[in-house]
Amino acid sequence: MKPKVGLITLGVRDLAASLRFYRDGLGWPTHKYNPEADIVFFALEGAWLALYPRDKLAEDASVPDGQGFGGITLAHNEPSPEQVDAAYAQAIAAGAKPVKPPSKTFWGGYSGYFADPDGYMWEIAFNPFMDLT
Amino acid sequence: MKPKVGLITLGVRDLAASLRFYRDGLGWPTHKYNPEADIVFFALEGAWLALYPRDKLAEDASVPDGQGFGGITLAHNEPSPEQVDAAYAQAIAAGAKPVKPPSKTFWGGYSGYFADPDGYMWEIAFNPFMDLT
Repeated sequence: MKPKVGLITLGVRDLAASLRFYRDGLGWPTHKYNPEADIVFFALEGAWLALYPRDKLAEDASVPDGQGFGGITLAHNEPSPEQVDAAYAQAIAAGAKPVKPPSKTFWGGYSGYFADPDGYMWEIAFNPFMDLT
Repeated sequence: MKPKVGLITLGVRDLAASLRFYRDGLGWPTHKYNPEADIVFFALEGAWLALYPRDKLAEDASVPDGQGFGGITLAHNEPSPEQVDAAYAQAIAAGAKPVKPPSKTFWGGYSGYFADPDGYMWEIAFNPFMDLT
């Protein structure tokens, strides 16, 4: 498993307000921003940052919001579904708590979630549309 | 303010257990690991990852642990204390909540913390020992 955090996602309450803060306030460039969508990506040097409604992020990770979910997920991307399975298996073997076994996602990718020893949520993902590996 | 997350710090309950998970389990390389110290850095591609006792991280950010503190901080590094001041001022002007105005740190750097619209903690830091800009 390559040592890399590819994406940090902040679960936000008011996407428009957070977008104003990061894009207009800090001046960070968005990546292919679609005002109709409820996710915003910032193409940063190194790890990317994404804003996504907090309740939907909790749902995506299949954890109940409010019950220890901190609102942030870290993602590690792999170049194929098979490598997602392998990285997920490695994390579980290392003692991670299985949260959502890798499966096909509604957005056309393949991903799973595990919790690290402190409960921090990691997504292992294959994204055929955006290379974050 | 350059679009970059330089460091992600996870506040952990058991540093030895988390170190085993990330270093031995996932196989990620530590950077100048000192077993005497209570912080571990992983030199990743892009944003670095650090493990630090959760109570000390809350103290460093000057927020009470448990009262909405999610346990994770994101850091943006700047190449000088003056640029830390400027980036901090830009964030506050953009609507961030001031949490800890930039000041000299016990480890020889210069940093401050603000909270984004959802309360996520960002550190703006100058680190004379490690270039994460």
